[in-house]
Amino acid sequence: MNREDVPKNPRQARELFRAGAWTEPTTGIWVDFVNANLVAVPQAMAYEFLLFCQRNPKACPVLEVLDAGDPIVRRLAPGADVRTDIPRYRVFVDGVAVDEPTDVRDRWRDDLVAFLFGCSATFERAFEVAGIRPSWRLDGKRTPIYVSSIPCEPAGRMQGPMAVTMRPIPAHQVALAAAVTSRFPRHHGAPIHVGDPSAIGITDLSAPGWGGPVEIGPGEVPVFWACGVTPQLVAQQCKPEIMITQMPGHMFIADGLAAREGYD
Amino acid sequence: MNREDVPKNPRQARELFRAGAWTEPTTGIWVDFVNANLVAVPQAMAYEFLLFCQRNPKACPVLEVLDAGDPIVRRLAPGADVRTDIPRYRVFVDGVAVDEPTDVRDRWRDDLVAFLFGCSATFERAFEVAGIRPSWRLDGKRTPIYVSSIPCEPAGRMQGPMAVTMRPIPAHQVALAAAVTSRFPRHHGAPIHVGDPSAIGITDLSAPGWGGPVEIGPGEVPVFWACGVTPQLVAQQCKPEIMITQMPGHMFIADGLAAREGYD
Repeated sequence: MNREDVPKNPRQARELFRAGAWTEPTTGIWVDFVNANLVAVPQAMAYEFLLFCQRNPKACPVLEVLDAGDPIVRRLAPGADVRTDIPRYRVFVDGVAVDEPTDVRDRWRDDLVAFLFGCSATFERAFEVAGIRPSWRLDGKRTPIYVSSIPCEPAGRMQGPMAVTMRPIPAHQVALAAAVTSRFPRHHGAPIHVGDPSAIGITDLSAPGWGGPVEIGPGEVPVFWACGVTPQLVAQQCKPEIMITQMPGHMFIADGLAAREGYD
Repeated sequence: MNREDVPKNPRQARELFRAGAWTEPTTGIWVDFVNANLVAVPQAMAYEFLLFCQRNPKACPVLEVLDAGDPIVRRLAPGADVRTDIPRYRVFVDGVAVDEPTDVRDRWRDDLVAFLFGCSATFERAFEVAGIRPSWRLDGKRTPIYVSSIPCEPAGRMQGPMAVTMRPIPAHQVALAAAVTSRFPRHHGAPIHVGDPSAIGITDLSAPGWGGPVEIGPGEVPVFWACGVTPQLVAQQCKPEIMITQMPGHMFIADGLAAREGYD
């Protein structure tokens, strides 16, 4: 199935994912709906993890936390199953990535707590509506993600640097991009940094940790947003017996309209 | 010491509270700074409580959670002590209010986790700046608080209805009041209800649970905001061995400027 033919309704999208009929990145497709990151960790570390998220709301904006062992989403997309309704997962055992399956029912445990986080993909449509047209959107490339030198606020064993996304923005639209994204506090909100990448410890824009790279066009400025990969990195460093996340760029598609976010 | 003479600097205010030199409500005095609610509960219920707050961000906007046993604020007012730096407390034993002291050092335990929540007092100055002048401000009355029929999203044993504040707003300024407060998502944000009190289970405006009552002047509409008393009520119903809160209206005064809230 190609990008143009996929159903844009979130429920139908999740049915596709569940059937294994779409296993590619979701980037740029379901931009009218809330996109979310998944991190499932054992209950034994859930409090420290939730506390870490509370202390780092820019990078770890928690949208929903399921009860221990419960794989069924209750609020963002009632009835969705986090074990099947995402195109592709990453499974970590003792902090090491061991598998990239399209279904994690065989890995699920009664003590796993699923966290769903906001995602900057949720503000992509608002960018477009505001007339922000950076070159990186035009050629369909994936948003690059870097590990910055910005330290997160620690919580117990949970600590580490903030992951960030980068978008080259035309200089005259940087303020507009900040204003637009400030309306999405649950999806990383306003930029965390504008301009010189080295100021936040990024020495080589051409070597992102995930996604991209994208070229910075003439007259464009690199603009950085906190990224939902942060909680994955932090939890991973604690080497949980098991941790399940979505593959970067392969997001959970919730029922809520992206345009409705930030108004409650 | 009377209201006019108190120092408006938050650090000096907390010194006053610590010395027992100001034990009255803070209402209307430190309106240029972040005002916060305190709830300290045993660590054994901290995860369920934090989860409840995550599921009910309008009523329970968590600003900071201290480590278990730690009474020292790290972010909102570095160095402040939640056991002494509030004008007056309420102490609950097994869910029953047993004391209203001005210092809780003798009640503190190594397993208590202190939660600080946003408070609608933080948007009072913005109201004034926007030119909203309801009659209830003019005569210095305290904001009335009611228990509504709006159910909170439960988390484990934590459940209950939402507490709300009510302010009579001139009809032509209701939209303005909603716009102004929507910029304070960490302090309950936009109203939860406008108009008919019975629609949210409030049968008698003249009998608030706390504060007030205030009269609704000619041409004014009752407007309701979620209230930080909610987490206290919910935790109390779980009958924790010990729970410590501030007295309603006797807020923790943080260092941050109220006008800076909502911009990160």
